[in-house]
Amino acid sequence: MILVQPGILTSHSLIDSCQSLGSRFAIISDETVASLYGFSLLERFQNRGLFTRLFTFASKEKSKTREVKQQLEDALLKEAYGSDSCIIALGGGVVSDLSGFLASTFCRGVSLVLIPTTLLSMVDASIGGKNGVNACGIKNIIGTIYEPHRTFIDPDLIKEMPLSLIKEGRIEMIKHALIADRELFFQLEDHWQKTIERNIAIKQEMIRKKSRALLNFGHTVGHAIEAESEYTVTHGDAVLIGIIVESYLSYQMGLLPEEDFKRIERLFEPISFSLDPIAILEKMRCDKKNKQGFIHCVLLQSIGTAFGSTAQAVDEDLMMRSLEYVGRLFEKISESR
Amino acid sequence: MILVQPGILTSHSLIDSCQSLGSRFAIISDETVASLYGFSLLERFQNRGLFTRLFTFASKEKSKTREVKQQLEDALLKEAYGSDSCIIALGGGVVSDLSGFLASTFCRGVSLVLIPTTLLSMVDASIGGKNGVNACGIKNIIGTIYEPHRTFIDPDLIKEMPLSLIKEGRIEMIKHALIADRELFFQLEDHWQKTIERNIAIKQEMIRKKSRALLNFGHTVGHAIEAESEYTVTHGDAVLIGIIVESYLSYQMGLLPEEDFKRIERLFEPISFSLDPIAILEKMRCDKKNKQGFIHCVLLQSIGTAFGSTAQAVDEDLMMRSLEYVGRLFEKISESR
Repeated sequence: MILVQPGILTSHSLIDSCQSLGSRFAIISDETVASLYGFSLLERFQNRGLFTRLFTFASKEKSKTREVKQQLEDALLKEAYGSDSCIIALGGGVVSDLSGFLASTFCRGVSLVLIPTTLLSMVDASIGGKNGVNACGIKNIIGTIYEPHRTFIDPDLIKEMPLSLIKEGRIEMIKHALIADRELFFQLEDHWQKTIERNIAIKQEMIRKKSRALLNFGHTVGHAIEAESEYTVTHGDAVLIGIIVESYLSYQMGLLPEEDFKRIERLFEPISFSLDPIAILEKMRCDKKNKQGFIHCVLLQSIGTAFGSTAQAVDEDLMMRSLEYVGRLFEKISESR
Repeated sequence: MILVQPGILTSHSLIDSCQSLGSRFAIISDETVASLYGFSLLERFQNRGLFTRLFTFASKEKSKTREVKQQLEDALLKEAYGSDSCIIALGGGVVSDLSGFLASTFCRGVSLVLIPTTLLSMVDASIGGKNGVNACGIKNIIGTIYEPHRTFIDPDLIKEMPLSLIKEGRIEMIKHALIADRELFFQLEDHWQKTIERNIAIKQEMIRKKSRALLNFGHTVGHAIEAESEYTVTHGDAVLIGIIVESYLSYQMGLLPEEDFKRIERLFEPISFSLDPIAILEKMRCDKKNKQGFIHCVLLQSIGTAFGSTAQAVDEDLMMRSLEYVGRLFEKISESR
């Protein structure tokens, strides 16, 4: 059950709805979000007489490890949490990926509630049940698919979000629009509740139609950039570059019309990272989506329509040329400054 | 698909049946089983031109940890295993619990083949998909439920098994008979294929009827004994004591007729472990099955019939007296020697 409702985070109905999900509640959050919303949520749960504790970890992608999962499990076991636990993941994608994985394996699966606090996690990480941690430099390589029992999305939180966080979310929304909704692409607007609902619907529809793989548009290149930068480049920035590289690739393969590519190219924003095509290609060779040694990525047929229903094997030379093309966009920008 | 067939381990059909499950095969085994069957199985896979590696760990219950799982994952990732992996768990319950958990979270779930090599794992660990590792002294507290894609049971292996291993398996078979099949209890015999098939059917039927919890008969006390002994007492020995304690408890509660209890009591065999009822009770307070602070255990109504369809809350005083009663059986035996 996904509820998108302004003010839901501080409402009584959130606690009412969680009450039946367990007898011991664990709010898991990162340190930043805990100080913003975690302590007050903890207090409201405790004021209702519910056994509740708050568990936090450092706010960064690097926390998404098997080690941090293990530390949280040890802390829960120490407090005698058992199969009647309810895990409440309060935060962005790092929190929901880590907590979702934890909930799916704790006592072989306990109740899970997601409260995404970033635009990105509202329209992406919270939908579809995928979770996981990173290992050996590969993102989300260890994890499960575990649907949350409740998801509460509070669009009011967007008003308080720093612009950099909103940008992250917008990039996934652009991706959703590119693969599935041409109209949405040209009117990504500011009525957040409606836009969020449309984005959730796109992601759910993709999953329902077994086209989940298409959600990886921009991500083959994006993940490689993230890994190569050792996660100093944000997921959003990396995916935006990925979207442009993979769009160029689609255009070069004769799939995407030139005018659509030119429109997508206008989204380009330089990031403080020097794009080394050879290193990026090397990282892509370890991608989870690879099959029989071939790099796979999602291709675009037009703005609003992905090609086929899954990622396609792509030629390494063409990928190389696409990376080089976008690399030159970086140079042009820095020259024009 | 569960196949019970003499000679299946060394047959061509095993490899034929696995071939479609992945393009990279990983045989996971403990060191003992690897030397018995692992290297020859590896060779047969490789001779068929299939990319296959053998990964081993130390043969003991203490290997069932998050740390050993992580070491295996790192080893797989180093060899570039991805979402087209097929994990082949070759061994007893420790191997299948650890490998099953690993397979369920590696790339969010890859193919899993079980080849149980102990009687216990043939009739118990291999059936029903439960897996997991131990943490903070609690058995199987972190894990998932993940059905294997194939299970190959070779009754010929029993001929080569040490008697101590056969005993372990017989104790779970006694448990199955006690909770579900009076006739089987009085004729646990030596036609292994038939007996194994009947035991698998009992376990599957319990799961199908959502009475899976009944399979924990003897295990509330058994797990506590195992933990208290720091796993020096085998699972089988601990569960046999557990069966007798929980049967006495059922008898004291007026559920189990005296003559049935007396028959079950005859199964008693002393073990080299001094049963401290207070310490055992303390361990039971951390059992996964507990709800609202009460110790839960499965009760017996007669030989062949469990009480209700799940574990029941039991009185701590009565549990204490049952542990003391069985403690006195130990004393009697040592006096009579």
